[in-house]
Formats: sequence, C-alpha cells, structure tokens
Amino acid sequence: MSANVPTDICFSFSGLIKRGGETGSHKDGWGIAFYEGKGYRSFHDPIASADSEVAKFVQQYSIKSTQVICHIRKANRGRVCLENTHPFSRELWGKIWSYAHNGQLKGIKKKSLSGYLPVGTTDSEYAFCWILSQLREKFPTKPSKAQRKKAIEGLCREISTHGIFNMLMSDSENLYTYCHTKLSWLTRQAPFEKAQLLDADLSVDFKKETSDNDVVTVIATQPLTSNEQWSKMTAGEFSVFRLGERVFTSVA
Amino acid sequence: MSANVPTDICFSFSGLIKRGGETGSHKDGWGIAFYEGKGYRSFHDPIASADSEVAKFVQQYSIKSTQVICHIRKANRGRVCLENTHPFSRELWGKIWSYAHNGQLKGIKKKSLSGYLPVGTTDSEYAFCWILSQLREKFPTKPSKAQRKKAIEGLCREISTHGIFNMLMSDSENLYTYCHTKLSWLTRQAPFEKAQLLDADLSVDFKKETSDNDVVTVIATQPLTSNEQWSKMTAGEFSVFRLGERVFTSVA
Repeated sequence: MSANVPTDICFSFSGLIKRGGETGSHKDGWGIAFYEGKGYRSFHDPIASADSEVAKFVQQYSIKSTQVICHIRKANRGRVCLENTHPFSRELWGKIWSYAHNGQLKGIKKKSLSGYLPVGTTDSEYAFCWILSQLREKFPTKPSKAQRKKAIEGLCREISTHGIFNMLMSDSENLYTYCHTKLSWLTRQAPFEKAQLLDADLSVDFKKETSDNDVVTVIATQPLTSNEQWSKMTAGEFSVFRLGERVFTSVA
Repeated sequence: MSANVPTDICFSFSGLIKRGGETGSHKDGWGIAFYEGKGYRSFHDPIASADSEVAKFVQQYSIKSTQVICHIRKANRGRVCLENTHPFSRELWGKIWSYAHNGQLKGIKKKSLSGYLPVGTTDSEYAFCWILSQLREKFPTKPSKAQRKKAIEGLCREISTHGIFNMLMSDSENLYTYCHTKLSWLTRQAPFEKAQLLDADLSVDFKKETSDNDVVTVIATQPLTSNEQWSKMTAGEFSVFRLGERVFTSVA
C-alpha cells in the first residue's frame, strides 16, 4: 500500500491473511511492515497467517501508515522459520528499506555481496541483499531520486533473468514494484465506494472511512476485492508509487 | 534475558511495562526484541508501555526465545516517535544485532560513521551505529569470539567517556552488557522457586514453568522481583552472557 495520508490496512489485510492457509496455499509464514514517517515496525510469524495470533492482533489493531508491505509465504527455497519470512529489511542511507518477493530465482547466490549479508537461506533475501549491496557500492551517499530509480530498475531487470521476480520494495518514501508474471493495482480516491473482499465475507464503505483528499493505492499479486477495477501490470513493468500515486512506470 | 532453552519473558515483561507510565516515568515509547534461532522479531510502540495495546498483546502471547532485549524509554535526546524507540537493530556479518541504551551521551555525534547510519535522532542509536561501523571497519568478515568481545569492550569503554552508558546488545548468540551506573542481574536455575514482581501484584512459581536443566539470566537497570537475590554490577563492568550463563566479565 502507498497512501498520501496515514491509512490503516485492516480491510486488505483481512483478505490477504485468509490466503495464508485458508483460501490459498501460502501457509509457510507471513509478515507485514509499516512505515510511520521514518519509523518502521514489522510483525512476522513463521506459521500460517490464517492461524496466527499475531495476524489476528494486527488485523484488529489499526496502525495508520503511508506505506505498508505485506507478504504471505509459500516456501520453495529455504525452510519454514522466522528468519526466512518476508518482508526483509535493512538500513541504507539512513532509511529502513523493506522488501518482499514472489517467485523463485536460480543462480542468484552466485552474485557477490558487499555490506549486506542474508540472515536466512532464501533466494529472496539474497536478491534483496544484492540490490542493496549494488546500490551502496554505486552510491556511497544517497543519490538523486532519478538516479535511484534508474539503478533499481536496472537491478530488478537483471534479477528477473534468474527466474520469477515479482517484487515490492520501499525506502519509506517510495514504493518500488517490479512485475514479472503477476501484480495488480488499484487506486482508491474520491468519490469513494463500497468494496467487497474476495477471500472473506467482509465489505467496507470507504466513504465513511476516508476524507475527500485521500489517495490510497493497493498493489497485490492477485486482486483482493471483487467489485473494483484492478489493473493488471504487464510483464517487465517497473513502477514507483509515492503518496498513493504512481509517479513512474517503465516497461522493458 | 539470556537462556539456554527458548523461554518466555511474559512474567518479567509484566513488571517492566508498568514502569513505562505507571510505577515509573519511562513513558516515551517502548520496544522488545526476540531472537528465535537466527530469526529476529521486535515489537515497538511510541507510547507508554502501560497504555500500549501492543504491549498487552506481547504480555499475553508467549514467545519463546533464548535472547530478549526490552527497553522502556524516557526521552532526553530525540523526540517521541517510532524511529527513536529502542531496541535498535542492524545486520552485521549475517546476524541481526540489537541494542538498547540507558543514559545520555555528549558529543557522540562527532564520531564518524561508515556503513551504518541512524534513522532517528537519538544519541543512543548514533552510538550503536558507531559500534557497528567500528566493528565492520576493523573486521570486514566475522572475527573470533575473543576478538569480537575485546573489540566491543573497548568500544563500550570509549563511549562511556561521553556520558552515562548502561547498555544491552545482542548478536543472537551473545548478550553483551556494559554497566556504567546501574545494571543488576539474576540467574534462575534448579531448584526453582516462586518469584514476586516489584511493580505488579503478580507472582510465578518457576518450578511449574521450567525443567531441571533450564538456566535463565535476567539483566535489568533495576531489579524486577522483591524476593530474589539480584547482583548489582559494578561501574565499568563489561560482561558477556551466553545460553543463560555469564561467560565473561571484566571491570576497567
């Protein structure tokens, strides 16, 4: 999620966590990361989100955030354990970067790392460490927005040659996305309407929850609601979202 | 806490969080970090722990861990916000390091950093980034236990020349402590007894909660229980705990 005002994710999260063991098979752990200004906090559990007490707590407790990354895991590489649950996070240029990946990457661990090492054993975390290693090597101090965007796009395209790479990454201000096979997105803004989840018998009337100036974009591998118009990203689409709006997009 | 078997901290945490706004004045946020093997998860809130819904959840939900670091904050330097709540964490040598500090440091921000930058504005986080910068500069790859210990001790002693520096730091295997003005500790092992909290009307019979081989050490700025024999660390005492035992101590 990317939003221009601190917004809670309870509605979308209620749908997504069902896919972790109930309406979907991604039952090998889950995690969610919230940005509150420069602050960052995350909740992780190495069990199915549908069964997780921590997930139930997060679902009920409204944390308002301008950027959220959430992930439910289906383990392919790396055993089921806390250190292998997404989103992964690291500090770069005085900001906490976080990242979640859907897909599998071959041969990624042959790439050399500098300054960032994985804690767990997934190909996903390794790729994240490689992105940050490359960024810091190229830019020891924070570069311009344009330089950052161009560098990250190039790194995403290189990783995607190793396999499936659907990705969300945030530096607390920008949400970078790379669609390899599946990512859909939706921007909610005035006039707000009612939305109905696909995975749970739950609807919300955003008119009652929002103010007229709110702009909130939700990006997911699969649409989360049944009655809204989600846009499918194309293969090879790299985008940047900021304050709820798509501010950049590029297709290879 | 340092323990030789995954142990929950619910009892100690129930006492400590009262000091965040109820029995004590450390009401400017709180945080707790759990290690589960190499895995790491933390909970933070920028409000008084005594009033925090997240703290209530953590208190009721048993997370079993071999190392835990918890902190309640009284803001001196740096405003009350999420990015200024301890414990702070960073990755070094493929492990998540976490750290909490009690005290105030003068002139610490004149020290130069490399590879680790603070996200918030506290002197505490700056000092942590300096420790990690120094460690990585001196040891680009993970050094021996003895080298690590010696280097960290030296860095703690240098920081303590800047002001008050009571500190807990963990690399998931070792818990490093530095006592400048106040730290007390207690090791619980068989035969286990009943313990009564100082800050809450709560007691626990550890005989019923433990097995004969458990060794659990709790370290705190002030003793947490009324009927157990806490040892006060001396000024300038640097110690290392591992699997519940104090494995090293040195006084300048």
